[in-house]
Amino acid sequence: MAVQFDYVAKRGWKPNNPDENYVITLLKIELDESAVREAKRQGKSEKKLFEDAAGTVAAESSTGTWTKVYDGKDSGIPLARAKRAMAYDLDYERKMFKVAYPLDLFEMNNVSGLFAGIIGNIAGMKMVSAMRVYDARLPRKMIEAFQGPAFGIDGVRKKLEKKEECLVCTVPKPKIGRTDVEQAKLARILFNSGNGTYDGIKDDENLLSLPFNSFDKRCKLVLAEARAAEKKTGNKKFYLCNVTHSNINEMLRRAKLIKDNGGIFMMIDVVTTGFAAVDSMRRANTGLAIHAHRAMHGFITRDNSPGVHGDGKLYGFSVSMIFLAKFFRLLGVDSLHGGSPLAKMEDYGEAIYIKDVLQAKELKPHNKIPSLGQKWYNIKPIWMTASGGLHPGDFEEVLDKLGDDIIIQCGGGLLGHPNGIEAGVKAIEQARDIYYKKIPLKKFVKENPKSELAFAVKLWGYGPRVVY
Amino acid sequence: MAVQFDYVAKRGWKPNNPDENYVITLLKIELDESAVREAKRQGKSEKKLFEDAAGTVAAESSTGTWTKVYDGKDSGIPLARAKRAMAYDLDYERKMFKVAYPLDLFEMNNVSGLFAGIIGNIAGMKMVSAMRVYDARLPRKMIEAFQGPAFGIDGVRKKLEKKEECLVCTVPKPKIGRTDVEQAKLARILFNSGNGTYDGIKDDENLLSLPFNSFDKRCKLVLAEARAAEKKTGNKKFYLCNVTHSNINEMLRRAKLIKDNGGIFMMIDVVTTGFAAVDSMRRANTGLAIHAHRAMHGFITRDNSPGVHGDGKLYGFSVSMIFLAKFFRLLGVDSLHGGSPLAKMEDYGEAIYIKDVLQAKELKPHNKIPSLGQKWYNIKPIWMTASGGLHPGDFEEVLDKLGDDIIIQCGGGLLGHPNGIEAGVKAIEQARDIYYKKIPLKKFVKENPKSELAFAVKLWGYGPRVVY
Repeated sequence: MAVQFDYVAKRGWKPNNPDENYVITLLKIELDESAVREAKRQGKSEKKLFEDAAGTVAAESSTGTWTKVYDGKDSGIPLARAKRAMAYDLDYERKMFKVAYPLDLFEMNNVSGLFAGIIGNIAGMKMVSAMRVYDARLPRKMIEAFQGPAFGIDGVRKKLEKKEECLVCTVPKPKIGRTDVEQAKLARILFNSGNGTYDGIKDDENLLSLPFNSFDKRCKLVLAEARAAEKKTGNKKFYLCNVTHSNINEMLRRAKLIKDNGGIFMMIDVVTTGFAAVDSMRRANTGLAIHAHRAMHGFITRDNSPGVHGDGKLYGFSVSMIFLAKFFRLLGVDSLHGGSPLAKMEDYGEAIYIKDVLQAKELKPHNKIPSLGQKWYNIKPIWMTASGGLHPGDFEEVLDKLGDDIIIQCGGGLLGHPNGIEAGVKAIEQARDIYYKKIPLKKFVKENPKSELAFAVKLWGYGPRVVY
Repeated sequence: MAVQFDYVAKRGWKPNNPDENYVITLLKIELDESAVREAKRQGKSEKKLFEDAAGTVAAESSTGTWTKVYDGKDSGIPLARAKRAMAYDLDYERKMFKVAYPLDLFEMNNVSGLFAGIIGNIAGMKMVSAMRVYDARLPRKMIEAFQGPAFGIDGVRKKLEKKEECLVCTVPKPKIGRTDVEQAKLARILFNSGNGTYDGIKDDENLLSLPFNSFDKRCKLVLAEARAAEKKTGNKKFYLCNVTHSNINEMLRRAKLIKDNGGIFMMIDVVTTGFAAVDSMRRANTGLAIHAHRAMHGFITRDNSPGVHGDGKLYGFSVSMIFLAKFFRLLGVDSLHGGSPLAKMEDYGEAIYIKDVLQAKELKPHNKIPSLGQKWYNIKPIWMTASGGLHPGDFEEVLDKLGDDIIIQCGGGLLGHPNGIEAGVKAIEQARDIYYKKIPLKKFVKENPKSELAFAVKLWGYGPRVVY
């Protein structure tokens, strides 16, 4: 428990003008059973133990220590008291609370340093057996210390000369298997089939530079196909080309190769490279938009517990995707995978709110999912990429729920079309085009049973296909 | 579930010469209850569902997809079959298994890319409700693709002219509160008190460049104290100076400032900056040793479940600290916080094995903690930093259990000494010195009741002080 000073605010305390003066976090914890037993043995109530735990979170993430320390001359104790974080808004029932951090605890433009504080050591506390950090609300000064996305929704639309509608994109499946030459052939089919409006191709997250599919060759060949298709179809094409590498200089080299070959996007795996990589790649001003894949995020964000949205027991130690999405927008990615309604991966129904995190100018807290909202000031809205087992039968619902500023990414949902790849392209173009003509999907399928869209729906139906 | 091909090996299958040909991972999962119900409805046994899940892990992290895709000319299907990962050694009771990944799936020198595969999307699968990745065993080619630590244990000992014994170090507490000038004054006391053998001072993880304690000024002032104390005491001193920043160029600038001021160590928060930051800072060859703090790791590594070491139920989604420690050694840090026996933070009793991960030449799997071992080839052994609520009464046990190649870090356990800071220095020096003279701690305290060590023990006792 926190010692030396109190880190729990008096009931009713609120931070003064938080968007100017504080970083705020919102958490839920479970108290460790042995800590509860020990507290009871000492005659301490569970309520008091929860207060101690909330105070310890505030202490450990700001100015505290586990034992009373020297407080004489030059001890730093007066400043530690003045600058300490305070736990407040304690919800004794749900074991939720907020922490308010004065700005002098942080460097404004240093996300890695901020995390070392607000989510640094708190998950190690023995007195808690589970914890979820739902959100952080950042003050104006911190938001304004970052440039945010270089392009965002409007910037990418301008590059693609596409003022409205969603973008459609395909990741080759099998995830790994095609050679660089074969991938370029696939790109040619995607870009030129159907009515020539298929927008993009994307590398899978585990496609790097491999013996049979080298980054450099793939990059050049696929981008050459994009340029050729643009000429032929009159429509702009994009390639989400995966530069992910643990060596940032190699990522920069790869980005330059994309730029030199006329590409407009690089793809970075933002969790496996890390926050400093994302910040540094953005600051490098490569001239490319950044598409952010989020491989590995499940090991940070997932908690398959009833308490994941507040009510009921929490199981693990997690930080929500809402929290991460907020920081990736701040750091300046132009597009982020945020799950999707109907997708194969677990997202606890957060995808629609994550879209708002990425796109709202002034984000309100969600009325059910614990969250804090955010004023975005100078930071542009960005694309949400919807993916994970999506197929043409999902389009209507995905677009209804997420809106038009999304990249819908179908891998198997195109390449698994029973009539082949070109048919897969047509099915997706149809699903998109009828949506924007306001023709209901089921009506179209019924009236056009020989359409490629109908064949796709016959195979995969409407909505989620697999428990995966 | 995995489709198109089988990703589960026949019973008894083993990878051929894995240290040459495969990356191996070791995992445990829990099956989602609704997936179990659905499987039963379909007449599928839980055993078969577990096999499906294991196969899906192998598929999703290598060459699979959720639906059968085009397998004609240029489809990549033959290579996807040949290069696919295989789940094997299925333990139906404990729901544990291994996955063997052929090397052609990866770039040898790209940890961020490797993670996008082996721990990329698997934590998102809806059919599992919990997952822990215990370990990865890396093949020779991957190990040899990295330089590893520039200095390691021997290199740092050489710089410090200290051939044997542990190192002792203090992080100022309060964590934040002292000005740069006050921190330098504390450094002077630490470096010059007692018998002048106190080794080091360290920044706390959330001490960055703040309005009242700027990085540049602190760096210069503390290193000046180190140089002055070396002259006065004849003993080398170190400062673990925290360069953590989400902008890698700023980290490099700070590293240069340390080097220019005669420092030998930089401290990086390796999770909040990320794997690419660590790799890139190492590759930059700054001439400094890298001290790795691990703030935020609890949100990746912690699972307070009975099943955390195999037997019993698992609660959350996690990757073990053993796994992370292995990669940080590979990426080239020279010292890593790895918990400690008697420490305040939860570590599931793994600290001693983590020390072996960091220091063994040929690491054997642990006989209780699920693990795979590792041949380290060219990669140097590194320091383990033991910290978290440690105090002088812990020294004997910590040194007995972890050996001499450790940095013992006491913050409150020095600065909270009842007789002040100098007394705290003396107490720690005494605890260390009697250990190397083979005098039992309790015996010394009994025979020297007026020693500073005895006063420390009177306050904090022996062993863990707090449920924290």
